[in-house]
Amino acid sequence: MNQISHIRPVDRDYRAGLNRPLEAEAARDYEFLGEKLARRDIDIEQVTAQVARFSVAVPSWGTGTGGTRFARFPGDGEPASVFDRIEDCAVINSLTGATPTISPHFPWDEVPDYAALRAHAEALGVGFDAVNSNTFQDHPAHAAHPLSYKFGSLSHTDPAVRAQAIAHNIDCIRAGEALGSKALTIWIGDGSNFPGQSHFGQAFERYIASVQQVAASLPPDWTLFLEHKIHEPAFYSTVIQDWGSSLLAAQAVGPQARCLVDLGHHAPNVNIEMIVARLIHAGKLAGFHFNDSKYGDDDLDAGAIDPFRLFLVFHELVDAERAGRLDVAPAYMIDQSHNVTDPIESLISSAIEIQRAYAQALLVDRMALSEYQEGNDAMMANQVLKRAFTTDVAPILATARFRKGAAIEPLAAYRASGYRQACAGRRPKRAGGGGGIV
Amino acid sequence: MNQISHIRPVDRDYRAGLNRPLEAEAARDYEFLGEKLARRDIDIEQVTAQVARFSVAVPSWGTGTGGTRFARFPGDGEPASVFDRIEDCAVINSLTGATPTISPHFPWDEVPDYAALRAHAEALGVGFDAVNSNTFQDHPAHAAHPLSYKFGSLSHTDPAVRAQAIAHNIDCIRAGEALGSKALTIWIGDGSNFPGQSHFGQAFERYIASVQQVAASLPPDWTLFLEHKIHEPAFYSTVIQDWGSSLLAAQAVGPQARCLVDLGHHAPNVNIEMIVARLIHAGKLAGFHFNDSKYGDDDLDAGAIDPFRLFLVFHELVDAERAGRLDVAPAYMIDQSHNVTDPIESLISSAIEIQRAYAQALLVDRMALSEYQEGNDAMMANQVLKRAFTTDVAPILATARFRKGAAIEPLAAYRASGYRQACAGRRPKRAGGGGGIV
Amino acid sequence: MNQISHIRPVDRDYRAGLNRPLEAEAARDYEFLGEKLARRDIDIEQVTAQVARFSVAVPSWGTGTGGTRFARFPGDGEPASVFDRIEDCAVINSLTGATPTISPHFPWDEVPDYAALRAHAEALGVGFDAVNSNTFQDHPAHAAHPLSYKFGSLSHTDPAVRAQAIAHNIDCIRAGEALGSKALTIWIGDGSNFPGQSHFGQAFERYIASVQQVAASLPPDWTLFLEHKIHEPAFYSTVIQDWGSSLLAAQAVGPQARCLVDLGHHAPNVNIEMIVARLIHAGKLAGFHFNDSKYGDDDLDAGAIDPFRLFLVFHELVDAERAGRLDVAPAYMIDQSHNVTDPIESLISSAIEIQRAYAQALLVDRMALSEYQEGNDAMMANQVLKRAFTTDVAPILATARFRKGAAIEPLAAYRASGYRQACAGRRPKRAGGGGGIV
Amino acid sequence: MNQISHIRPVDRDYRAGLNRPLEAEAARDYEFLGEKLARRDIDIEQVTAQVARFSVAVPSWGTGTGGTRFARFPGDGEPASVFDRIEDCAVINSLTGATPTISPHFPWDEVPDYAALRAHAEALGVGFDAVNSNTFQDHPAHAAHPLSYKFGSLSHTDPAVRAQAIAHNIDCIRAGEALGSKALTIWIGDGSNFPGQSHFGQAFERYIASVQQVAASLPPDWTLFLEHKIHEPAFYSTVIQDWGSSLLAAQAVGPQARCLVDLGHHAPNVNIEMIVARLIHAGKLAGFHFNDSKYGDDDLDAGAIDPFRLFLVFHELVDAERAGRLDVAPAYMIDQSHNVTDPIESLISSAIEIQRAYAQALLVDRMALSEYQEGNDAMMANQVLKRAFTTDVAPILATARFRKGAAIEPLAAYRASGYRQACAGRRPKRAGGGGGIV
Repeated sequence: MNQISHIRPVDRDYRAGLNRPLEAEAARDYEFLGEKLARRDIDIEQVTAQVARFSVAVPSWGTGTGGTRFARFPGDGEPASVFDRIEDCAVINSLTGATPTISPHFPWDEVPDYAALRAHAEALGVGFDAVNSNTFQDHPAHAAHPLSYKFGSLSHTDPAVRAQAIAHNIDCIRAGEALGSKALTIWIGDGSNFPGQSHFGQAFERYIASVQQVAASLPPDWTLFLEHKIHEPAFYSTVIQDWGSSLLAAQAVGPQARCLVDLGHHAPNVNIEMIVARLIHAGKLAGFHFNDSKYGDDDLDAGAIDPFRLFLVFHELVDAERAGRLDVAPAYMIDQSHNVTDPIESLISSAIEIQRAYAQALLVDRMALSEYQEGNDAMMANQVLKRAFTTDVAPILATARFRKGAAIEPLAAYRASGYRQACAGRRPKRAGGGGGIV
Repeated sequence: MNQISHIRPVDRDYRAGLNRPLEAEAARDYEFLGEKLARRDIDIEQVTAQVARFSVAVPSWGTGTGGTRFARFPGDGEPASVFDRIEDCAVINSLTGATPTISPHFPWDEVPDYAALRAHAEALGVGFDAVNSNTFQDHPAHAAHPLSYKFGSLSHTDPAVRAQAIAHNIDCIRAGEALGSKALTIWIGDGSNFPGQSHFGQAFERYIASVQQVAASLPPDWTLFLEHKIHEPAFYSTVIQDWGSSLLAAQAVGPQARCLVDLGHHAPNVNIEMIVARLIHAGKLAGFHFNDSKYGDDDLDAGAIDPFRLFLVFHELVDAERAGRLDVAPAYMIDQSHNVTDPIESLISSAIEIQRAYAQALLVDRMALSEYQEGNDAMMANQVLKRAFTTDVAPILATARFRKGAAIEPLAAYRASGYRQACAGRRPKRAGGGGGIV
Repeated sequence: MNQISHIRPVDRDYRAGLNRPLEAEAARDYEFLGEKLARRDIDIEQVTAQVARFSVAVPSWGTGTGGTRFARFPGDGEPASVFDRIEDCAVINSLTGATPTISPHFPWDEVPDYAALRAHAEALGVGFDAVNSNTFQDHPAHAAHPLSYKFGSLSHTDPAVRAQAIAHNIDCIRAGEALGSKALTIWIGDGSNFPGQSHFGQAFERYIASVQQVAASLPPDWTLFLEHKIHEPAFYSTVIQDWGSSLLAAQAVGPQARCLVDLGHHAPNVNIEMIVARLIHAGKLAGFHFNDSKYGDDDLDAGAIDPFRLFLVFHELVDAERAGRLDVAPAYMIDQSHNVTDPIESLISSAIEIQRAYAQALLVDRMALSEYQEGNDAMMANQVLKRAFTTDVAPILATARFRKGAAIEPLAAYRASGYRQACAGRRPKRAGGGGGIV
Repeated sequence: MNQISHIRPVDRDYRAGLNRPLEAEAARDYEFLGEKLARRDIDIEQVTAQVARFSVAVPSWGTGTGGTRFARFPGDGEPASVFDRIEDCAVINSLTGATPTISPHFPWDEVPDYAALRAHAEALGVGFDAVNSNTFQDHPAHAAHPLSYKFGSLSHTDPAVRAQAIAHNIDCIRAGEALGSKALTIWIGDGSNFPGQSHFGQAFERYIASVQQVAASLPPDWTLFLEHKIHEPAFYSTVIQDWGSSLLAAQAVGPQARCLVDLGHHAPNVNIEMIVARLIHAGKLAGFHFNDSKYGDDDLDAGAIDPFRLFLVFHELVDAERAGRLDVAPAYMIDQSHNVTDPIESLISSAIEIQRAYAQALLVDRMALSEYQEGNDAMMANQVLKRAFTTDVAPILATARFRKGAAIEPLAAYRASGYRQACAGRRPKRAGGGGGIV
């Protein structure tokens, strides 16, 4: 197919050729890990099978170089259209075998013909995950957005702005239906920068009423993901500042509404894995926007700063799943800003880190853990987690990829393919320059 | 009455004598402030009347010198019994006119004859507010507490420990009934220090089931205050770590359960006034444990570190009350640790700072604010709050005290009374030494 | 002068006309405050005189609407050139009488003829403060910046990039000399987003060597201001992450180098007034970038979030000045991002809040405070600060403005002048749209 | 030797017996890891040799159960004297082979005859590391401490208190000389709880002058370790709040003074590995108090919360050592509070985690890392660190222990020995009860 001819990493034979010299070593590592795990009564094949089934969606917007309010430093060969972005996502999925779906963002990914877009994606082996609306920016060139979101969107004091934001969200649902999505993620920038600027209670009520209107247009098999964030772009208050507000809103909207956890949207020191446990308890966990952070919503690559925290999140998820406490399977999505790396490389690496945390969580000896917890043996309970986390699961991840026809070494395969340089040749150079600050 | 004879500040004539030379100046300051407020269409008399009606409970445990895990440095004349503690609280109320009730803590304040304790308090002009249970410490000398709370209480894995903790809470209710209280505050130290030590979901379910049992013993006109805290004494996770968990628990327990906000129990940077607004929205705000903090649960004097934040909290409360959004009046209590000051002085000063924030919040021009909010005039909305906050309301506070027969200058009156020195003479010296660390 | 004719607030008669109906009330408030302060042995005239001498520089870049990485929502009549920005600054100074200087930023404020720029400013009654270099953005259209700062500037691994950044800083000095400045502020975005990306030690050494080269071009009566920041735009590490690194660098560079404190550049909970005290001790305090923050480098209006903290900073400064501990007068500058307000209004309001904090600090009874500190009377020492902070010093600020011919009510005067609307008519509309994120 | 007869884990034969059935598996794991590392051009024997030479000191005070201000829940068989504490430390060292020295704390570890204490330790195979003074608690029963440290010690306003604190530190040096120590660690609780309570500048100057006096009594081959802490027990300000103040003090005191880094003594989000790099640059790094924390100075077990951060710290140390940037070898000490575990188990586990981080840091391919850093290849630089961190180095640690005659599985060996139960039989039960709060 000519769509694929210029995208070398999508070619299965290309990957197989690169894998060949690595196979023997990978097999040996896998065999020895299998032996070690067998001593712990763990069947490596079961783990590998679960890892192979695991997938995480990549964000279409994450394929372009990100930036800060100070500057954006463009990379070479950045995607210029949603079609380009889908090709980049297909590269990631081909190499990792772990990212078969894309999360689109509107109006950034708006096209006149969604069927064509869907066909383009399917031809490249990828599909679509939750759609995202955007009412945190103005879209002055866009006929459906004549009003400004400077002072809010779904919670704006002006009903006309709220109506515009609601209509946009419904448009997103329609686009998502055409693409095969089953969920809409709502994140808003609404909030305030000054004490007094906004009435906390009224803004929250307006938000809920707006989301209820969006929900009324939701197909019955869709889910609404409500995403909270403590700050930014608003710096004194946000309307959905934490999981508590997200929960109240989801309760008010009804069973189709659930709470999305972005790992970087919390106050310092907050125990995120506990929030996961509480949302599971409440039957309101939607899923995740994975990334990592040290200071705020840094949107760094998943697992880059605190891999143990990522493991602890998956430990909660695996625990809940094993115990039948998950009413629905959580949605896994990456949401990062790739400012200093090739976005494709960051998404490849992040997908692997997320798989790694999941694989480690699968190794937790839950029977032993449960006994230690019951007996308040804090030391041994902790040792159980440590043993799982310090196990080097790379051979499992590599084998799962190899068996799927993905790359044993995805980053190396990507670099060897020359894909980015080829893109640089055929895609227009994007401008960088100042961020929001000037 | 002989109980009062040795407590000079409780003597109205003593206070009147001290007030006399201050009256003229206080009157002049009050008159001028009245003139300024009149220009802003505010009737100072209305404000003063509201301030005069305002009260906050003092904690019986706050009358002793506090400490840290490193050390406790005792003060002179510390109370040796709950009777002493009540006398100290009566001194605070006599001088401020703002603290007519005491919040007791059991088993610290346990006595064989609650009627006698209540009579002692009434003779001194004070009554009792919410009672507090204590299952965060062992009480080895106490027959009702043979089991240790080292690994939890209401959420313990062992049903026998949970039963003991439930029984203790019910005992607290019974004691509170005898004292005239109408609420039980539950704060537990349950949590974990190690990832893996505790099963988040199961611990939460055990907590809820235990609290439901306590609630079943609650008189119909009582309220249950559930208090959350992000960390300490547990340093990896706590069972009720934030207002979201507190809300879930209160929803599960039913209409008598509400969420108590302690100003020092949050993650860094958290917008506490927003939490207040959300709990009001949910109809689940119980009230407050006032104190101030810079780093964690520092338990410093209210208003000592961030007086503007205290004002913003009261701004939400006054706003909700004016708008009829408060289903019940919130409970106001002080909860502080006085490590380097005379506790009576800290409680006097804190009660005044809390009143100050309330008085400032009463000055907010809510009509103007509402218009600016509707019009997204962030600058002017903020100016409205600033104008209220920068108004020096000391003359209102002094006048409210004076008219009640309390002291115009409570700290000076307290120091002049020689009360502490007298206590030092008749109360045994308490030991200091190491805190929990050794 | 025709330059001024279209800038109504710069017209002294315009302001006098607005002041007239406010004078009597202002005089009465001032008189009564004077009476109150006299009781505390404070001569209000001395305070007013000090406040009148106080000034803070405004940032030329702060006159445009700011933004975040998510979006910038433009305002009406935004300045289109440095000449416009100077006019806006002149408006602020005319109305407040407190901002006679402007801090320029290069290459944003670059012009071919600095003498003309200086003359323009002088005609409007304003001069120039510290100049700022910009090596945190690329300037692709600028011949002197062919190389990218994507991976750093003064600490870049590539000597050619470092040389370019050094040359730019020296260019800034030359421009500053032409404008009458006496200081260069260096803030860099250098750092890393990934553990391992940057060698901490070598990057620091490269930074120091580069700054030493800049310092070698410094006129003898100039000062170099080194500004630290914990994060953003780099999200794992920054080269000058805190005042400790800033101090080490300033020590290595020599006596002309000093440490600049931006109130929003610290970790959560950090005691900023303590850092001020330490830099005074070290003889290395340069001055301040004033703003306020709740979460990170929020760049909110000074005093908007934590006015007591601003007061405590000024308390340290006044204390040090009185004690002869300040070797040089600190530089005061505002550095804010005005995303939801008219930037002129925010700068007016911020200048007033900074003056307010200074005026409150002047009221601290330092003799009493010192005695209480010596005697470890924590309660009374704190009361001394509280009494100063809760004093409503608005009459002092208004009187200082009035006596200088500035506006008694600067915000009202600004709004009444129609200046912004006039600008909107003659300045081109600036684009908004996405920030760095897309 | 009869001292040893009752301490089973100290018996080499006991350990050898337990190791025997584990040897074959350990050897196989080690062999395979060696094969994997060889592919990465790493000689496992070199790494194992370095790990075997690595040691960390254990705190004598850490052998007792810790507590919080709320409560201390005693464990069974807690040490009742410094002799007991030394026996516990000997058990830890015998099982891990990694903790040959003990850090004593005075006056807690004060004895009349230090030669006897030293002989007791030597007989058990352990020696003494840095001594610690204690002026954060009162020692009312102690003749040398008649004055209270309630309001400070080395920085107290009263010269008599400072003199007492100085004398105590000098006493610690003398005791340390008798024990064979070479360093004194000074951590003070001095600070304030209220704005205004303390004069920041003067308190710092008094601290420096006091430490200079202590330093004057230091033997020439000793080092003074100055330890900073952001808060607790003081909750508004501390005298040595961060590494910047610590550095200024160490510079003022002279070459024998260096800065000690406790991993839990920083503001939230702070990049601790960067501080390590800066102190190395300044030639002022003393060493570490290892522990882990999520919220504040939680004093949790090293590596329990953020093992990647611990690795990053060791990455800096190994890097500096390889580059010859370390002027002296840093001192490694554990400083933890074991509230819910058997302290011996926590110290065993922590020593292993610290070794693990060191071993992982030894695996970093520094040549490749350096090239990626020079080329700003953030992705591959980060991959280098990840590859080292995700390597399961347990076989190296086990082999290093086995070859030294320590236990392959120290925790299991400890539990099997029945040591704690034996202690419970012969040591008096210690009281628990309330912490500092009541």
